[in-house]
Amino acid sequence: MSSTYAPQHPLDPISPEEIRVATRCLQKHLQTNKIHFKVIDLIETPKAAVLAWLEQRQQRLPERRSRIYFHANGSHVLGKAEVNLTKGIVDSVIELPDAQGPADPLEIERVHDACDAHPLVKAEIAKLHLPKGARVINDPWCYGTDDAKERRRLYQCYMYIALSDDKEANHYSLPASFSPVFDAHTLELLRIDQLPMGSGKDIGTDTRPWDPVPAVEYSAGVLGDDCFRKDVKPLQVKQPEGASFTVAGRTVSWQKWNFQLGWNYREGPVLHNVTYDGRSLFYRIAMSEMTVPYGDPRSPFHRKQAFDLGDTGLGTNSNALTLGCDCLGHIRYFDGYRAAADGTPVIMKNVVCMHEVDQGIGWKHTNWRNEQASVVRDRQLVIQCTATVANYEYILAFILDQAANVHVETKATGIVSTMPIRQGVLDTKWGTVVAPGVMATNHQHIFSVRIDPALDGHNNTIVYDDCVPPVDEDDDPYGCAFEVRTTKIQKPGGYDLDTDKSRVYKIINPSIKNPVSGKPIGYKLHAIPSQMMIMKPRTFNWKRGVFASKPIWVTKYRDEELWAAGEFTNQSREDTGLAIWANREEQVEDSDVVLWHTFAITHVTRPEDFPVMPTEKMMLSLKPTNFFNINPSNDVPRSNQKINKSTLENLSDATPLACHSRL
Amino acid sequence: MSSTYAPQHPLDPISPEEIRVATRCLQKHLQTNKIHFKVIDLIETPKAAVLAWLEQRQQRLPERRSRIYFHANGSHVLGKAEVNLTKGIVDSVIELPDAQGPADPLEIERVHDACDAHPLVKAEIAKLHLPKGARVINDPWCYGTDDAKERRRLYQCYMYIALSDDKEANHYSLPASFSPVFDAHTLELLRIDQLPMGSGKDIGTDTRPWDPVPAVEYSAGVLGDDCFRKDVKPLQVKQPEGASFTVAGRTVSWQKWNFQLGWNYREGPVLHNVTYDGRSLFYRIAMSEMTVPYGDPRSPFHRKQAFDLGDTGLGTNSNALTLGCDCLGHIRYFDGYRAAADGTPVIMKNVVCMHEVDQGIGWKHTNWRNEQASVVRDRQLVIQCTATVANYEYILAFILDQAANVHVETKATGIVSTMPIRQGVLDTKWGTVVAPGVMATNHQHIFSVRIDPALDGHNNTIVYDDCVPPVDEDDDPYGCAFEVRTTKIQKPGGYDLDTDKSRVYKIINPSIKNPVSGKPIGYKLHAIPSQMMIMKPRTFNWKRGVFASKPIWVTKYRDEELWAAGEFTNQSREDTGLAIWANREEQVEDSDVVLWHTFAITHVTRPEDFPVMPTEKMMLSLKPTNFFNINPSNDVPRSNQKINKSTLENLSDATPLACHSRL
Repeated sequence: MSSTYAPQHPLDPISPEEIRVATRCLQKHLQTNKIHFKVIDLIETPKAAVLAWLEQRQQRLPERRSRIYFHANGSHVLGKAEVNLTKGIVDSVIELPDAQGPADPLEIERVHDACDAHPLVKAEIAKLHLPKGARVINDPWCYGTDDAKERRRLYQCYMYIALSDDKEANHYSLPASFSPVFDAHTLELLRIDQLPMGSGKDIGTDTRPWDPVPAVEYSAGVLGDDCFRKDVKPLQVKQPEGASFTVAGRTVSWQKWNFQLGWNYREGPVLHNVTYDGRSLFYRIAMSEMTVPYGDPRSPFHRKQAFDLGDTGLGTNSNALTLGCDCLGHIRYFDGYRAAADGTPVIMKNVVCMHEVDQGIGWKHTNWRNEQASVVRDRQLVIQCTATVANYEYILAFILDQAANVHVETKATGIVSTMPIRQGVLDTKWGTVVAPGVMATNHQHIFSVRIDPALDGHNNTIVYDDCVPPVDEDDDPYGCAFEVRTTKIQKPGGYDLDTDKSRVYKIINPSIKNPVSGKPIGYKLHAIPSQMMIMKPRTFNWKRGVFASKPIWVTKYRDEELWAAGEFTNQSREDTGLAIWANREEQVEDSDVVLWHTFAITHVTRPEDFPVMPTEKMMLSLKPTNFFNINPSNDVPRSNQKINKSTLENLSDATPLACHSRL
Repeated sequence: MSSTYAPQHPLDPISPEEIRVATRCLQKHLQTNKIHFKVIDLIETPKAAVLAWLEQRQQRLPERRSRIYFHANGSHVLGKAEVNLTKGIVDSVIELPDAQGPADPLEIERVHDACDAHPLVKAEIAKLHLPKGARVINDPWCYGTDDAKERRRLYQCYMYIALSDDKEANHYSLPASFSPVFDAHTLELLRIDQLPMGSGKDIGTDTRPWDPVPAVEYSAGVLGDDCFRKDVKPLQVKQPEGASFTVAGRTVSWQKWNFQLGWNYREGPVLHNVTYDGRSLFYRIAMSEMTVPYGDPRSPFHRKQAFDLGDTGLGTNSNALTLGCDCLGHIRYFDGYRAAADGTPVIMKNVVCMHEVDQGIGWKHTNWRNEQASVVRDRQLVIQCTATVANYEYILAFILDQAANVHVETKATGIVSTMPIRQGVLDTKWGTVVAPGVMATNHQHIFSVRIDPALDGHNNTIVYDDCVPPVDEDDDPYGCAFEVRTTKIQKPGGYDLDTDKSRVYKIINPSIKNPVSGKPIGYKLHAIPSQMMIMKPRTFNWKRGVFASKPIWVTKYRDEELWAAGEFTNQSREDTGLAIWANREEQVEDSDVVLWHTFAITHVTRPEDFPVMPTEKMMLSLKPTNFFNINPSNDVPRSNQKINKSTLENLSDATPLACHSRL
């Protein structure tokens, strides 16, 4: 996607020109240039229109429409406009006095600067008696919710002492003991919260002189060359004949797969219209939401609950990826676009990377009679992005393989959220001391992935299979049997996993039977069994993220129902997503159905997570079951030294054997 | 390990010369050369002797001893000898009239040939009226157990029709409808079981003419070049400066890791004496046992329950690995040795491969203030083997990384066990029809990994942490808190996981506190939540593999207590391993304790698993928690295009950005 990018497919991301059209339309409609644009993005083209277009493949795209969040003429009330980009007209403008839009870069910058400049904050900093050269930086945090009546737009600034000007200096190593709260509209300082510094229920005390302690650094420059391992030998991935994929516009083809690579400010990369060998599999797969509640009940920490898609946006926060750093091998990058606060388009360079990896053996069998081995390697296509949300990083990858599996991988890395603790206090109940004076609070990362299936058509059914002993004991004289009991999901709702029954949720097309097995064609979800949100139903944590209370959700498809916790999560008081959509009285069997999977890490922090935590990986998979007649990777050329060109370490000791297989 | 291999470390595998010594000693002791050697292997040197040796590092090894399973002078009774290899004397010989030794290659060959040659089997084959060129092959299966009084040594031969002489022809695609049972000692045919061919409780009927149907083939030769994908471009891994590891004897050093790479006929590769940065972590990590019960209750299928370590041996069944096929990149191989039936050593070439892989991003943080990114890649060391157990393949890998994590990965692949079914019958209750006339029975693979920890010493404690709401509601006015509740394991036994509490089992050294966090140093087990054995306690399945009934086991260390289901699993009637060791009345807290993890796949078969199934992967991890003071991979050089030399697909579209980090 170059700077001359123009959408060629209804599901292509918004273009710079479309952003300009949206901006102009709204300015004209409101007859003002005094608009603070928070978000300009596409309203995804309705499914019916997309499907009609796919039938015909005309050059002309279905009408493209944009959703704009904004504040006009200095209003504190969030505005929302819908613009018909094709016609160049505003369809609707509404005011949402009850909603808070997502944080946007300009707003954060303003709060940040107001905090930096405020005399009372400066006075508080002065009480720290910092050594010369030290400064205090602030991270504005979305405020969370603890009061149903609150209508102001608030930021809680967490303050950190910085000793170094190095660009990679750890900005989270020396948390200060106070936290100013600002109104984002007025930029007024509302108060300065004192942070609890002890182990128990204690509340904060007055700011005291800082007790100097060195920062724990990850910066190569600060650490110096001597600190680094010397024995990591280069490992390079080469594709001398280039990549196995082809890209036309944002249509990607690889190993019988074909999909449209979407992207938006909120979800980052999106897989649309995924087919395998010409057969329809999924209309859409995307990360839908993530919430991060912290388990420290002491004020103001009880408000720490990020919604990293709804509050800011995985796309907006995506890193510009760099060759040799974020992927290894032969890489293709994709750009994204967002709007600046003045409505002009901003190119987000290289926010998505795509490359192939070798993930070990794909399948192998050795005939024991003749020791003839057949081996296929597991080549995968990885579509990846990394988002930085202040201290944390999330790496999201969609992974396709040659056995027709789709994997969604999330990696958590970055810097744990650090809060101050009196040096020497170690028996903290709510986290772990990861450096002197630094507590990393225990927390959860609760993700929702939305899967909109289209298995050989759009009418699908969600079922789950349990593996259980047979009911009829006569069947089972030796007690060794088990049967697969299938339950159809007929109503929308939240559903449970059951590891003790190997419960597997499947998407099936009940109208199409596999000719070999006679069973309905399907894809099964290899879910991630995990603890759901620990916080209780009476809490704001729970009410704001009902999606986080059940691992499986099933809803009936409706356009624009994409985000698990609803449209507006910032300072939200309730989940307006799955909490509503999964509660409707309707049939979801043999219909256009959507499957959602909630999975989580409960992160009990460790000193090993500091300064930057090693990636913590979670992966769900969607695997065909009775969808194909044989192993879809039966036609992958056998592994072959002529092509793979592996090399031997220590030639004298090991005799290379010839590859057995012919190809 | 070359052909001149001699052990240099107490934990080194048995050598050819030691096998010769063991053979000669027993022959001399029994005053006969008429010995059928089933197994000659080491008795692992007692821990106390190993530790004493490690203290001193003398050249002279502690006494090496061998365990021999054999039948002498045609006896049907299993003999077991213990030989002092250092002194060249037999310590003990006992007869075990109640035990069955593991299957050995000669025995299987004899049964196989007896079945092939038997006139009644030939007569049964004749009833199939096979087309010209077709033949019937047989797979002798360990008999399983359904009668506590059975003392004969039995094999159940499953029969398959083979149409092709191609060396990669699928030998499991055309199951025949009958199954001869042989006595392995007398080579007598006891009976021919007719296999159930219908969907329900039906029993077998007389053998009828075969209804011809093509085999489902994976052979490149049979399929022909036109069947294969043409668009898989080469992907090669290069280490131009060689590997980052060094090997001296069987001592491996890599990235602060140091371990002794053991190997034996039963467990395959074993990690011994694992240290990181000079600190002791684990005395021993190995796959301990696996059982595979099949869920079809119809005779004779109810007896299908393999114990793939105890019945045959993961080492014995290991493939000779080949360059460019089993691993990609820069590879080091290791050999193993076993004894032939006449007691001579057999070199098992390249049964273990070791190489480095790049597993994506190890950690990353981008400072949002200046967009400065720091990235470390996740370089891993993989020690891997593949074992073929008739139709199935298991790939076992120990994986070490730079963040001081150990991963144990198992991949199931190969060919599902196929049984006949009348063509056209699809509504089978106990499996899936994966090809016309072929049913793949649903089954479980239940693995046990044994972890013998030595965290900064040998006195360790197993604890588990639950993440739960606080008991004291006063702590938690907003209901948002959770606390980590720790339970010490004081008694041996089987313990449960609890996903709903994020229960994590940890090994700690209660005597050593982390100086940063104040918490005891530890490693946590990232367990694999899975369904335990479905079969009920009254069944032989359960009694033989009690280890498969609980995910976590804790025992007190004793020499030679290595195998979860006990020493003899073939036709066993009860678990003589964990069922006994975990039932002792003793203290395991702050002692030399062993942690065992049972995990499983319940495999509901699919046509996609045929002819060869795509690998099904499971991975457990051992991760430091409060063991180190900071992220152990903080000293890994930052990812760097100068070293990684990635390349761009489609240069015109994407502008390469410079790597930010300095190193």
